[in-house]
Amino acid sequence: MIGVGVVGYGYWGPNLVRNFVSNSSARVVRVSDLDTAKLAACQRLYPGVETTHHYEDLLKDSKIDAVAIATPVHTHYGLALAALKAGKHVLVEKPLAQGTNLVRRLIDEADRRGLTLMVDHTFLYTPAVQKIQNLLSRDELGEIYYYDSTRSSLGLFQSDVNVIWDLAVHDVAIIQYILDELPVAVSATGSSHVAGSPENMAHITLFFESRCVAHVNVNWLSPIKVRQTFIGGSKKMIVYNDLEPTEKIKVYDKGITLNAPEENAHQMRIGYRAGDMWAPHISATEALQIEIEHFLECVNTGATPISSGLSGLWVTDVLEAACRSIADHGRPVQLKLRKQTLKRVAAVA
Amino acid sequence: MIGVGVVGYGYWGPNLVRNFVSNSSARVVRVSDLDTAKLAACQRLYPGVETTHHYEDLLKDSKIDAVAIATPVHTHYGLALAALKAGKHVLVEKPLAQGTNLVRRLIDEADRRGLTLMVDHTFLYTPAVQKIQNLLSRDELGEIYYYDSTRSSLGLFQSDVNVIWDLAVHDVAIIQYILDELPVAVSATGSSHVAGSPENMAHITLFFESRCVAHVNVNWLSPIKVRQTFIGGSKKMIVYNDLEPTEKIKVYDKGITLNAPEENAHQMRIGYRAGDMWAPHISATEALQIEIEHFLECVNTGATPISSGLSGLWVTDVLEAACRSIADHGRPVQLKLRKQTLKRVAAVA
Amino acid sequence: MIGVGVVGYGYWGPNLVRNFVSNSSARVVRVSDLDTAKLAACQRLYPGVETTHHYEDLLKDSKIDAVAIATPVHTHYGLALAALKAGKHVLVEKPLAQGTNLVRRLIDEADRRGLTLMVDHTFLYTPAVQKIQNLLSRDELGEIYYYDSTRSSLGLFQSDVNVIWDLAVHDVAIIQYILDELPVAVSATGSSHVAGSPENMAHITLFFESRCVAHVNVNWLSPIKVRQTFIGGSKKMIVYNDLEPTEKIKVYDKGITLNAPEENAHQMRIGYRAGDMWAPHISATEALQIEIEHFLECVNTGATPISSGLSGLWVTDVLEAACRSIADHGRPVQLKLRKQTLKRVAAVA
Amino acid sequence: MIGVGVVGYGYWGPNLVRNFVSNSSARVVRVSDLDTAKLAACQRLYPGVETTHHYEDLLKDSKIDAVAIATPVHTHYGLALAALKAGKHVLVEKPLAQGTNLVRRLIDEADRRGLTLMVDHTFLYTPAVQKIQNLLSRDELGEIYYYDSTRSSLGLFQSDVNVIWDLAVHDVAIIQYILDELPVAVSATGSSHVAGSPENMAHITLFFESRCVAHVNVNWLSPIKVRQTFIGGSKKMIVYNDLEPTEKIKVYDKGITLNAPEENAHQMRIGYRAGDMWAPHISATEALQIEIEHFLECVNTGATPISSGLSGLWVTDVLEAACRSIADHGRPVQLKLRKQTLKRVAAVA
Repeated sequence: MIGVGVVGYGYWGPNLVRNFVSNSSARVVRVSDLDTAKLAACQRLYPGVETTHHYEDLLKDSKIDAVAIATPVHTHYGLALAALKAGKHVLVEKPLAQGTNLVRRLIDEADRRGLTLMVDHTFLYTPAVQKIQNLLSRDELGEIYYYDSTRSSLGLFQSDVNVIWDLAVHDVAIIQYILDELPVAVSATGSSHVAGSPENMAHITLFFESRCVAHVNVNWLSPIKVRQTFIGGSKKMIVYNDLEPTEKIKVYDKGITLNAPEENAHQMRIGYRAGDMWAPHISATEALQIEIEHFLECVNTGATPISSGLSGLWVTDVLEAACRSIADHGRPVQLKLRKQTLKRVAAVA
Repeated sequence: MIGVGVVGYGYWGPNLVRNFVSNSSARVVRVSDLDTAKLAACQRLYPGVETTHHYEDLLKDSKIDAVAIATPVHTHYGLALAALKAGKHVLVEKPLAQGTNLVRRLIDEADRRGLTLMVDHTFLYTPAVQKIQNLLSRDELGEIYYYDSTRSSLGLFQSDVNVIWDLAVHDVAIIQYILDELPVAVSATGSSHVAGSPENMAHITLFFESRCVAHVNVNWLSPIKVRQTFIGGSKKMIVYNDLEPTEKIKVYDKGITLNAPEENAHQMRIGYRAGDMWAPHISATEALQIEIEHFLECVNTGATPISSGLSGLWVTDVLEAACRSIADHGRPVQLKLRKQTLKRVAAVA
Repeated sequence: MIGVGVVGYGYWGPNLVRNFVSNSSARVVRVSDLDTAKLAACQRLYPGVETTHHYEDLLKDSKIDAVAIATPVHTHYGLALAALKAGKHVLVEKPLAQGTNLVRRLIDEADRRGLTLMVDHTFLYTPAVQKIQNLLSRDELGEIYYYDSTRSSLGLFQSDVNVIWDLAVHDVAIIQYILDELPVAVSATGSSHVAGSPENMAHITLFFESRCVAHVNVNWLSPIKVRQTFIGGSKKMIVYNDLEPTEKIKVYDKGITLNAPEENAHQMRIGYRAGDMWAPHISATEALQIEIEHFLECVNTGATPISSGLSGLWVTDVLEAACRSIADHGRPVQLKLRKQTLKRVAAVA
Repeated sequence: MIGVGVVGYGYWGPNLVRNFVSNSSARVVRVSDLDTAKLAACQRLYPGVETTHHYEDLLKDSKIDAVAIATPVHTHYGLALAALKAGKHVLVEKPLAQGTNLVRRLIDEADRRGLTLMVDHTFLYTPAVQKIQNLLSRDELGEIYYYDSTRSSLGLFQSDVNVIWDLAVHDVAIIQYILDELPVAVSATGSSHVAGSPENMAHITLFFESRCVAHVNVNWLSPIKVRQTFIGGSKKMIVYNDLEPTEKIKVYDKGITLNAPEENAHQMRIGYRAGDMWAPHISATEALQIEIEHFLECVNTGATPISSGLSGLWVTDVLEAACRSIADHGRPVQLKLRKQTLKRVAAVA
């Protein structure tokens, strides 16, 4: 039984508490938040859980083995570092921290102490993304030509991060998870339409050494919610719509093959196999339930999480580069980290 | 009664012929194509229309007042110039020509001779785009924040132009038509996944002097057809889905207003007015019918078409700049033409 | 603060408990269920709530003012009657009981004791149905021509009731709630495709004195979930799709007006006004939260609930008649209860 | 080369002419219509086709081998009989005639003269219905439990037939085509909301000797167009949406298997296999093109058409019975014709 403390009972915290409470391997010992009303709401639902305004109470509590952090982004680094120093395993809401240097420091601390450091890239644990990863790892799509994603909605502005750190982070994590190679450069454009507020819409292009290209379109000012991703391969293509209640993933049997161009032809129809579509059954299990099960298992066994600190490091590196490119109106920025690097860093650590 | 000749009876030509035939102000005199089978198909449907392998037969025919050109892109300039020199009014399939220098030459020739030169930007004549233009011109949306469009499908590769000249051309023409200002710079990325073939997917960002940003996502390798545009304004937002049979335009009554951030708040919910949605009735009239009616009227009255040569010039300028940016991995390219410039050029001409 | 006991912690019970717990006017005192595992799950989430295998413990508990019943249909009558006799207010999952005679007995008991008796017709409390009721009561649609509903999905078979008592019950309750008149006869057909199981699909037609006709299509064997209702009026029409995340209700501005038929015309186009569509903003509040607030208020004030015992009586009467018609392959069965009757019965009581 | 005459150039006639003109085995000789403007429109498009106000001109024309009839329903019988008597093969728009006695007379006349008599049940020739027929004939769905169809839209009222003869006719023809057995009884309800006009909405239930049930919902007063059919089987289920541009047919791998009910269980979850969905590629060929090819082939070879006179007889029989049931508020009406009967009648003829 792993004792858990949760920091932050705002938007995401209640989901963490609910899922830890439902997991038979964990026990939620204490929740901290600065807001008394939120703590009262927590107590109403879970009279057995203690609450506090002081984060330190969690760190000092010997019944707490792991801390889950669901606070504003700019506080992630400080809270996570303090938890690690107190010997607690740590699960941090995405993004892990606001800079690769901070993330490296956290990884270092966790490695030195042999603690689990995991970033809450929830989408990686959705049955839909798990299925996509499975399809790609079995080479069902052939050579990957592109990953093209739109993630937009109206509503929740963050004052301390822009839309890239809030929404594009999901796609960048997914790209790292499902593709064999990592991008070598990023070009991005973005803009803000609310004075004094960070970028609320952005377009990011990721370049790879292969012909693969990834594009991510994120927007906080969209009248409707869109969560749609196209993945095109030489053999098949996937349309992944996260808002579909049951048929989230559609696999199109439409490989393209180029016909030899006819003499003088100005239009060559590519010989595409206009085949069937197939929507595999996707489990309806909540991603956070799967993720928390995975976190608790990593804490118990010492295994490296799918969304490890190194995963967070790489994601942070891409987001930083994207922001630099935005500041420069789309000029491409080189990326340095490679999958091998990540593995080596991991091995060294 | 305006006598019409049509060059090219491949993919688009039959639509031109059908619509000219149905228009009571026009008479289709002759159709030319290099392909005997295509001419036979034309004759089967329209026994009264003459056919020929020789384009010159159209130019020499005194019964022909206007020529419509629906041939491969690289032939547009030569065929249009010859027609103008023969004293014919000209309607050219988009894009008008493969370079601003060529387009300027056509505009010059048409102006000198007092002939109508119109480019077939069909989408401008759809009842949906007409309705959008109407809504924006009445300031229904307030300040325009963004135009974000995806236009993708699987199938028709062009060997002589890339996906930007084939698909993005529509959005660039629409942007010019519906917005008050024109972009000042363009950043684009693109890639080809078929050896020896031009770019089959691209992302284009257009920057404006105001906070407005336009983005166009075009793709020839998409498993499903997408024709979707979001237009966000300070007062309302539009979702335009051209594939919807009847409700192509949805207007969302969701202006955003920024709430004063609470003390210490890390998340400020923007005060958005989650209002109603409204889908105005859109006529089902075929765009090409409206466009050809407009072309014939311009020929008759000497009026300047909505999609005039100058419109084509500006669109070509943007497409050229986008291609330069792609070659440079997204580096922004400045645009020189302004609405005023276009008007002045027009006035001078 | 109203003390609440909940009987049955299976499929629906947890939703009742969660909503009573979240309501500041109520306190959940005790939950009973025959299944130990279910009670344990309840305790895990709500350590402050007592649990028991014995329903009598709720009836004897003086801290409990009201009992909510979420058990198999055939037990509703017995449990509700016992609760009323013990002086408790009662909220019963739909259908209220399996026969009008039983329902009358419950109404009688509640009236005699001055207790609130409410049936859990949840759909009446959805913001969507509330909006529809509001539109119809303001005569936005004109004369109502039809109500046509499809409610189907795959999955939950009930062994003690057929699909009419499980699914059609929702539409029958909605019809009573939103229409001015009640049907005078019912014709229904149904069938079972699982040996020994009650009907799993049925079609019900309700006839009115006016030209209005209501039709309800319910099916437990559908591969996809459908929750769609069309309401046609002389002035406007509504499409209500409960599965749409935000645009659940679409109001079509398409009144029909019959053109005088032309001489010898075999097709007269009705003069329909192909107008706009409008989707009013619908609140995302959970129906059960609204319903429980309403229940608690009725308990406090003695007001008659929207879904009172008499409402349940009328619904039960229609369902019984529909089942008789099914047994007779669709022969129409007359209905006796009228809105006036219901009101008079209420007044007498 | 089969010479063809077409009667009626209103709504459907132009489609017939266009498809006969495009078919290399046919030549459209003459078109007749009472309306001069319509004949002028025909001549404008097809200068090679003769036109006439007099139907007799088609019958007397020896260059005409076959006559296609696209006129008001009440004229079908007279025009078809005259054509047969003049020795012409006949294709009649649906429904074949307004009564089984009239249809029998036409079948008799065609058989006696060895002429092809075909009814234009266009939907049978759609690639989608052909695919469904193929799936069912290979027993992909197992035992068929139900066929449930909704076919509604706003617009075209017919003054000489009700909505059953106009819209339900399609489903009745499809049912006969794809199912192994024919219904033994029909129950229907319907109503008119326009004074002096025939029924504009109706619901029809078809009963079979097996447990299969078919239901057809037709409506001329729907704010939106619906063309949706569910076919449920013991092994798989089909959702057929004719308005989907490409994925018209979805096959759900969701057979149901009943679990042994647990002791005291009031809800038994049927053991359904929540499997994958599969959308077979459907050709985009126009149904009428396939149908006319089939008609011309039957004329040439003497083969019996899929939608033969006997098919039309059976469909007419069901529609008549449905109308009788409507007049009796849903009382079931027995059907006499069986598949064997149809075959025997065919054999005798």
